[in-house]
Amino acid sequence: MIATCIFFKFTRTVLLGMAACLFVTTSVLAQTDPLPSWNNTGAKAAIVAFVDRVTAEDTPGYVPEVERIAVFDNDGTLWTEQPMYVQLAFALDRVKTEAATHPEWKDTQPFKAVLDNDMKALAATGEKGLVELVLATHSGMTTEEFQKIASDWIATARQPRFNKPYTELVYQPMLELLAYLRENGFKTFIVSGGGVEFIRPWAEQVYGVPPEQVIGSTIKTQFEMREGVSTLFRLPQIDFIDDKAGKPVAINQFIGRRPIAAFGNSDGDLEMLQWTTLGGTTTRFGLIVHHTDAEREYAYDRDSPFGRLDKALDAAADNNWTVVDMKADWKQIFPAK
Amino acid sequence: MIATCIFFKFTRTVLLGMAACLFVTTSVLAQTDPLPSWNNTGAKAAIVAFVDRVTAEDTPGYVPEVERIAVFDNDGTLWTEQPMYVQLAFALDRVKTEAATHPEWKDTQPFKAVLDNDMKALAATGEKGLVELVLATHSGMTTEEFQKIASDWIATARQPRFNKPYTELVYQPMLELLAYLRENGFKTFIVSGGGVEFIRPWAEQVYGVPPEQVIGSTIKTQFEMREGVSTLFRLPQIDFIDDKAGKPVAINQFIGRRPIAAFGNSDGDLEMLQWTTLGGTTTRFGLIVHHTDAEREYAYDRDSPFGRLDKALDAAADNNWTVVDMKADWKQIFPAK
Repeated sequence: MIATCIFFKFTRTVLLGMAACLFVTTSVLAQTDPLPSWNNTGAKAAIVAFVDRVTAEDTPGYVPEVERIAVFDNDGTLWTEQPMYVQLAFALDRVKTEAATHPEWKDTQPFKAVLDNDMKALAATGEKGLVELVLATHSGMTTEEFQKIASDWIATARQPRFNKPYTELVYQPMLELLAYLRENGFKTFIVSGGGVEFIRPWAEQVYGVPPEQVIGSTIKTQFEMREGVSTLFRLPQIDFIDDKAGKPVAINQFIGRRPIAAFGNSDGDLEMLQWTTLGGTTTRFGLIVHHTDAEREYAYDRDSPFGRLDKALDAAADNNWTVVDMKADWKQIFPAK
Repeated sequence: MIATCIFFKFTRTVLLGMAACLFVTTSVLAQTDPLPSWNNTGAKAAIVAFVDRVTAEDTPGYVPEVERIAVFDNDGTLWTEQPMYVQLAFALDRVKTEAATHPEWKDTQPFKAVLDNDMKALAATGEKGLVELVLATHSGMTTEEFQKIASDWIATARQPRFNKPYTELVYQPMLELLAYLRENGFKTFIVSGGGVEFIRPWAEQVYGVPPEQVIGSTIKTQFEMREGVSTLFRLPQIDFIDDKAGKPVAINQFIGRRPIAAFGNSDGDLEMLQWTTLGGTTTRFGLIVHHTDAEREYAYDRDSPFGRLDKALDAAADNNWTVVDMKADWKQIFPAK
């Protein structure tokens, strides 16, 4: 018999009620699979073993609930990042939408390449071109105006291959994993190279992650009082890139303690996985989603322009991180609907 | 009769038990005062009216629980900031402790002033001197090493007038307020001009605020693998000053939505109060702690070198923010122990 402890959250200062605490047998627990979209392979077993370990009170692996911090990359870990990062698709669409008010873009790179649908010329503008594109499309408005622009776009845009909204191309097994961890006392954070204000408007509805648990790249903002109303205005300046070695820096700045579990899929997540698993004294878990399913999603790793997985794949072997073989380990990729 | 709804938080995926939901009469509620250290004056009435308003379902003032974000300044709002900011006292002590390994400090300002206990000469070095002092004492170690240094100091240092640890010179009425808000579904954040890694090690124990809900000033950190262990090394460079117009910027960056309640005590909190109360569409609340009690704590406002309250006091009158008159509104200042 396992005695299941039920915790109560009261909305008032005082103990207002009483509760009957019932007992259930282990057989009841065993019948319910918290990860139904995962095949019964090693990846799932490793996740369940980790969660069982950190929640087993009075054992050496136990981790108190307040320390159960789990961090998730977004692009390629929680939703699809092919044929290009979703936020890049957003920036390209914004250039086309705004082109009428920027006649100079017709003759200026990187904008000309976007308007000509010339992805090769766009790639040739390099990181400098990309930054210019992002700043031109993500600044020059208040934070609230930008949230509306991002929300409106995400509600209508379609991923080209699957012809579905991007928010339906999230990974069902990862949604189950987020919920499973939360049900076991974890606080789940997103730590994305993408813009934080691009992700926050829909992260709560899609992932169950509230805005204050989304960490991402930022551009500078400036506080202004405008006719008695307080605003934050988005400036055309990069503030922080939350990628690679920036991820542990941001995790420390925002969360202030080492996570005990990290989930990523690319070299951009290497340092986050290192920060989570290589240091600290309690039980740790690292996982990499390896995209191996060209039929149901995409197959890519060491040579991919988006979500390149090379060093982090080697590091996974060295550090005993779990590598999800999408094709073999996931029964289902996207939510059924 | 009020039907009190009890929410359950389960540690497993499935509904594991049942609970008896009991009913209590309003008279039982009325007997319990959630703010016993507050006198029954206007400030307390305003707080209770606000909380009643945002928690009253099916009324125009109601705010859903996920949006109940409350932000608190630290120095002078949650604990005493006289005769100097606690973190400045920490920096001065660190200079004295480290002086033996820095013989050059004997002849270099601002360090010489500290070692000579010459506060006038220190003040003459201005903001530049202060920044230099902070960087010299707060960088050059890993984040975990710094946390230990800060924790050890806070456990032993004594405030000169009251001869007590600083963590006992927190305001009992504000501790009750933090708890009262949390019991009513608020998420409480600290938004301090002080260093975030100076506050986090003790904020959970003293204020009930976990590290991930403490926002503050930061210095730059750098990720490094050292002999297989991941570390963040604190660099001698200011990253972000979380004060004045920086507070709304940080609140937006960390929390991603406007708070509905803000609590401060100085001009450093003006923009945070504006960001919280002047904009947004739901019920809002702003409060300023006015230090009026020279006998039990300190009395200061427009001319104070620490915690200067001038523009924000004028703005309180214009914007209907509640001003706490410490002497009249607080029955007790510090926790009894």
